[in-house]
Amino acid sequence: MIENLLNKLEANWNEMVEIRRYLHQHPELSFKEYETAQYIANYYKEIGIEVNHGIGGNGLVATVKGSKPGYTVALRADFDALPIQDEKDVPYKSKVPGVMHACGHDGHTATLLVLAKALKEMEHELEGTYVFIHQHAEEYAPGGAKPMIEAGCLDGVDVIFGTHLWAQEPLGKIQYRTGPLMAAADRFEIVIKGKGGHGAQPHLTKDSIVIASQLVTNLQQIASRRINPVTPAVVTVGSFVADNAFNVIADSAKLIGTVRTFSEDVRDFIMEEMRKVVNGTCISADCEYDFTYDKGYPAVINHEEETQFLIHCAEEISEVTEIEESELQMGGEDFSYYLQKVKGTFFFTGAAPDGVTNPYPHHHPKFDINEKAMLIAAKTLGTASLRYQQKYSEERALQK
Amino acid sequence: MIENLLNKLEANWNEMVEIRRYLHQHPELSFKEYETAQYIANYYKEIGIEVNHGIGGNGLVATVKGSKPGYTVALRADFDALPIQDEKDVPYKSKVPGVMHACGHDGHTATLLVLAKALKEMEHELEGTYVFIHQHAEEYAPGGAKPMIEAGCLDGVDVIFGTHLWAQEPLGKIQYRTGPLMAAADRFEIVIKGKGGHGAQPHLTKDSIVIASQLVTNLQQIASRRINPVTPAVVTVGSFVADNAFNVIADSAKLIGTVRTFSEDVRDFIMEEMRKVVNGTCISADCEYDFTYDKGYPAVINHEEETQFLIHCAEEISEVTEIEESELQMGGEDFSYYLQKVKGTFFFTGAAPDGVTNPYPHHHPKFDINEKAMLIAAKTLGTASLRYQQKYSEERALQK
Amino acid sequence: MIENLLNKLEANWNEMVEIRRYLHQHPELSFKEYETAQYIANYYKEIGIEVNHGIGGNGLVATVKGSKPGYTVALRADFDALPIQDEKDVPYKSKVPGVMHACGHDGHTATLLVLAKALKEMEHELEGTYVFIHQHAEEYAPGGAKPMIEAGCLDGVDVIFGTHLWAQEPLGKIQYRTGPLMAAADRFEIVIKGKGGHGAQPHLTKDSIVIASQLVTNLQQIASRRINPVTPAVVTVGSFVADNAFNVIADSAKLIGTVRTFSEDVRDFIMEEMRKVVNGTCISADCEYDFTYDKGYPAVINHEEETQFLIHCAEEISEVTEIEESELQMGGEDFSYYLQKVKGTFFFTGAAPDGVTNPYPHHHPKFDINEKAMLIAAKTLGTASLRYQQKYSEERALQK
Amino acid sequence: MIENLLNKLEANWNEMVEIRRYLHQHPELSFKEYETAQYIANYYKEIGIEVNHGIGGNGLVATVKGSKPGYTVALRADFDALPIQDEKDVPYKSKVPGVMHACGHDGHTATLLVLAKALKEMEHELEGTYVFIHQHAEEYAPGGAKPMIEAGCLDGVDVIFGTHLWAQEPLGKIQYRTGPLMAAADRFEIVIKGKGGHGAQPHLTKDSIVIASQLVTNLQQIASRRINPVTPAVVTVGSFVADNAFNVIADSAKLIGTVRTFSEDVRDFIMEEMRKVVNGTCISADCEYDFTYDKGYPAVINHEEETQFLIHCAEEISEVTEIEESELQMGGEDFSYYLQKVKGTFFFTGAAPDGVTNPYPHHHPKFDINEKAMLIAAKTLGTASLRYQQKYSEERALQK
Repeated sequence: MIENLLNKLEANWNEMVEIRRYLHQHPELSFKEYETAQYIANYYKEIGIEVNHGIGGNGLVATVKGSKPGYTVALRADFDALPIQDEKDVPYKSKVPGVMHACGHDGHTATLLVLAKALKEMEHELEGTYVFIHQHAEEYAPGGAKPMIEAGCLDGVDVIFGTHLWAQEPLGKIQYRTGPLMAAADRFEIVIKGKGGHGAQPHLTKDSIVIASQLVTNLQQIASRRINPVTPAVVTVGSFVADNAFNVIADSAKLIGTVRTFSEDVRDFIMEEMRKVVNGTCISADCEYDFTYDKGYPAVINHEEETQFLIHCAEEISEVTEIEESELQMGGEDFSYYLQKVKGTFFFTGAAPDGVTNPYPHHHPKFDINEKAMLIAAKTLGTASLRYQQKYSEERALQK
Repeated sequence: MIENLLNKLEANWNEMVEIRRYLHQHPELSFKEYETAQYIANYYKEIGIEVNHGIGGNGLVATVKGSKPGYTVALRADFDALPIQDEKDVPYKSKVPGVMHACGHDGHTATLLVLAKALKEMEHELEGTYVFIHQHAEEYAPGGAKPMIEAGCLDGVDVIFGTHLWAQEPLGKIQYRTGPLMAAADRFEIVIKGKGGHGAQPHLTKDSIVIASQLVTNLQQIASRRINPVTPAVVTVGSFVADNAFNVIADSAKLIGTVRTFSEDVRDFIMEEMRKVVNGTCISADCEYDFTYDKGYPAVINHEEETQFLIHCAEEISEVTEIEESELQMGGEDFSYYLQKVKGTFFFTGAAPDGVTNPYPHHHPKFDINEKAMLIAAKTLGTASLRYQQKYSEERALQK
Repeated sequence: MIENLLNKLEANWNEMVEIRRYLHQHPELSFKEYETAQYIANYYKEIGIEVNHGIGGNGLVATVKGSKPGYTVALRADFDALPIQDEKDVPYKSKVPGVMHACGHDGHTATLLVLAKALKEMEHELEGTYVFIHQHAEEYAPGGAKPMIEAGCLDGVDVIFGTHLWAQEPLGKIQYRTGPLMAAADRFEIVIKGKGGHGAQPHLTKDSIVIASQLVTNLQQIASRRINPVTPAVVTVGSFVADNAFNVIADSAKLIGTVRTFSEDVRDFIMEEMRKVVNGTCISADCEYDFTYDKGYPAVINHEEETQFLIHCAEEISEVTEIEESELQMGGEDFSYYLQKVKGTFFFTGAAPDGVTNPYPHHHPKFDINEKAMLIAAKTLGTASLRYQQKYSEERALQK
Repeated sequence: MIENLLNKLEANWNEMVEIRRYLHQHPELSFKEYETAQYIANYYKEIGIEVNHGIGGNGLVATVKGSKPGYTVALRADFDALPIQDEKDVPYKSKVPGVMHACGHDGHTATLLVLAKALKEMEHELEGTYVFIHQHAEEYAPGGAKPMIEAGCLDGVDVIFGTHLWAQEPLGKIQYRTGPLMAAADRFEIVIKGKGGHGAQPHLTKDSIVIASQLVTNLQQIASRRINPVTPAVVTVGSFVADNAFNVIADSAKLIGTVRTFSEDVRDFIMEEMRKVVNGTCISADCEYDFTYDKGYPAVINHEEETQFLIHCAEEISEVTEIEESELQMGGEDFSYYLQKVKGTFFFTGAAPDGVTNPYPHHHPKFDINEKAMLIAAKTLGTASLRYQQKYSEERALQK
């Protein structure tokens, strides 16, 4: 049965490429993926798969039900694009100025659609149920995963798998990791409210630039002194704005940044330490401040058993030439929300373009993927979906 | 003769008020004072005083020649306005949106015009020559004084006097100071050229915000440790801009600021120390930088003898109720250029509005002056101009 | 055979306690362990084991040779004490003022001696050779391991095992880790050479305290910004001395500290980054400096196969109730040198005293161990030593 | 009468030199000047001047009463030495190891003794009363001036004069200043109470060295941003001690330093700002601290009329070749206490050794004075004392 599936996927790889290129030319920003959602809905309708539209926003959920009892396995693909101008010189270049599929979500979608079609064709022989979650808005917090879950997309689901095509890793490589894989990604904003004045009269002011500079310096100590050295954590101030004439003293200064962590404990600890440092620094300077800390996606924490299972499935795929443990990734993903609800694992599928030594990174204006990686992703996800039903049979056998 | 002059000034105070209010309603920005210059030229033509237009830009120089030999005394008034929205609720409020005489230059001009008229009426009995320098662009470096001097406005001039109406000091007060009075006001710009990247991957970047914050902190040591504590000096970073998304690391950061000093030695010393601190901080961080330091107006250094002379003249004016030594002023003035060429002094004429405890500071949207101060300024400048001729007679007597 | 060994160890546990308590009362500082070395030598002579004294300093190497061919397995125990005043209230308290076995090396030695005795008794039935490395000076770099290796203590050795009794973990727990386990521990010294002077005349000086304070602050950025967040690394300034009268400005300031890393790359990277930061900070301040960086013990890197093997051996010991992966430990150990030469692994044997919730940490004046842990350590090391010979037989079988 | 005095002083200059050299060889530390006090007392007894010993400690007060009515004029000389090893190669080198008259107080004393003797010889013709205050312990706060005043040394005194021989200024120069002349000199002590630990485990500690370094950096902003740039003020951390092994994290750090100001307002302001900065910095780091601020001598504030008077007296002295306004001096002097009670002035008498381009500074192991300066000091003080009586006569004349 698995061989049958893999053959179907190989036979339909051209369609994946077509779909991916169509989507690549028609990217839409997070929370505004109306046409893309319609495109996905149409595809499912054409191939006779039931699809629910408008789940938690622009999300869609399609289902293929096998003819035999089994587990309900969910697979997820995201489909939003980024506010980046496509600078590639290819026929399938984005047609929307300033918007681009610069992270590979077009490929995720194409992979999942064609995999769903193949499974649909095999539905008479399938065990269990297959849920295809097409998620909008992965790139922009608060993201689409949370509202889709709240709208019920995981109801009845036993396990979930997801992958990210990864242009920085070579074709043929699968990267897994048990436990934490990707970081919680939070956003903070600090406004230092000093007292402005003439640049030649510092004593009549509270110099917000000096205070904020001191604060940026002080914040370094959180990573260097207050966190266990073996615990990865990042505090970054990405923006510092106090935009004035040269001869004034800044009335206020605004800092915006991000915190990355892999556990709720460390996340909350850093938030509290930041609060102390901001507060103390402003007490030093006798000034006011605003401090807001918005939690973004939590860390992606893969389940151990499902991760081991996925590794074994990947070993079966002939195109997979290397399986390695991923380093911890400081980037964020709202796949984390699914893994808080059901068992599962998220993995990377190497997708470096052929013949390129230093592929452009994700979110780069010249980013591209190796489209052959879609086939590997589809085969791995498909194999995992079917193999997982064996557990069902085994468990039933035990119960008897 | 002096009494005659003072009487004329008193009699014409109403005209000063009219002129000042007209100018107040028609302010023009530095280097764009075309209408104001025309207004001044017209005034001189009407009262029969020769005037040269377009001196070093929009500047004008008018001359009244007495019938007897004597010194050539120059008096200066500036006439540019500021890019500030007038928020006063008075009939003579600015009619130009976003432009305002928020520093009293309208009053300076009115004072000088009416004083010139009075002296013109006395020309048959006057000794010496009187040069009225109407300077454009005092508010905006490189200023109007320098090009006017280069165009010859001080040719043949023996001494110069100037005053600033000062709303922060009470009506009736004259403030003088021998030697340094107002600071050299320079502008610097520093661009930290780090290496941008993703906010979660600091090790692949050179964080320009952290480097620039360190730099701002380090720069404090110039004032706190490297300058003689009895030597006034200010290093202010007025602007810090690294405007990015929250989840990136800043590729570059731009600092703009001002340095205030009272001597060329200290000025050059600070410039060199800043260069060291910028260079060392960037070597620490292994990054590049741009550092530009533009010298603005030099310090206003009053001549001792002329300052003492001015004090004695002010003592004669009945409306002058207090004469005090001014503190060093950290603000700048391009009157400094005149004093580098000829002897003279610059002083403050108290101009706090009646019945106001905390007058709005100069450059404030609600700034206003006490118009009676114009009479005091005119009397003081006029008395000084006439009295200065005594020196001429005395010197001649000695030579014989 | 293994059962026989374990029974012997149980029967001789009392002797372990006696030896450990004798050593506990007679501690000696690193590189000065003359009496202890003699004690060990005497013990071996009494039980008829050949022992080489004075290996690479005060080190000793004893050997038990089995009657059958096999691998040469080395076991290592360190035996130096610390310059700490024993504050425990126990009969076996240290009799040497200011010197104490505050890290458990007394227990390591007792464990190894009694294990050697047991193996000696079984020598007629043993395969392979057993080398007992009693190492001096583990606590104080450059340590005893390096000179002992240079003196040949590993010659002919196929594999080495070592353990540390660990009072912070409960009795019955064994902690292992593949790859990096303990950190490289380096020492640096920075002297800021400013220019001293009177406290009221900063402009005539280069304030070493301000410069060194800036440096300490700048150094935080190495951990916070320049190292991959998933790579553990520590830069600590442990000592800052500029000891002067209140009214002077410091001529110099001396910083001493430590760097902890888990790979040579990161170690060298940090050394170079520190050099940049020190250099740049001193260029900022136009002052001189000395910077010395002394590499201490390298990281303890356990071999994968031997670590897995050790886990399986530990599983056999009935007293072992928990086997877990250790966190990375930022402390150092010169066992690292042995693992650079031969295969092997280093592990922790839980040794929290009975009934104590928060055991005193190692190096604390009230530190103590649970003596039952010595039995567990001896059983685990002994089992590993014998089991390892199976590999020899298997390999021989394959070769045939 | 003045000419008579000046002649006597000239005739007795040799005695001044003898006295000064004797004292130079027998220096005593502050508050321990027992022999020196006895020497002074003996001198007065020998020349028949009444002297009170033990005033406010080791202080002495001698009085010469003229035969005619007049003001009571006090003159002050200090007589303590410093804990410095004399490194000069001269016959009159200090005979006390580690103690030295390295500030010229020996010269002050010699000057005053011989001046007193000369006035005593003229007592039948003198108007008014002359009080010679020999003060102990000027070098070491809380100083001798305060207790001597409390013991009544200024009772009945109308005016006081004092001078400091100043080796950094050429012989023949007198430096005066109206208003503030020398700074208030305070002492502070800050203990940062973090939490110590192992150098490899920063997250379990509160790193006192990092916190204290941040504090030193933050304190720079008081001088650079919070004080009016035209107001001299110094905050110096002279000592930073956290003396530990290289591999620990500091439990505490101790900072000691000085603050220099010229007015009580600024003094109190800085104390409060320091308190804010220390408090805020420790709140940032969640640690405790001790902060103590001990006010030392207040600023020396010269009275205007008496300073002008002194200038005129100095102009009479033929050896005085230059009279100039002194810069503000950041050093302290407890002459300030006298000037808080009675009118008077303190001035500097140039005392650079002959033929030396860069004289050693005060408190240097090779410091020396030009002994001819004692004659100039005696003449200036003597002239001022006699001339001051004219004011008495004039005032009486007016009253009649």
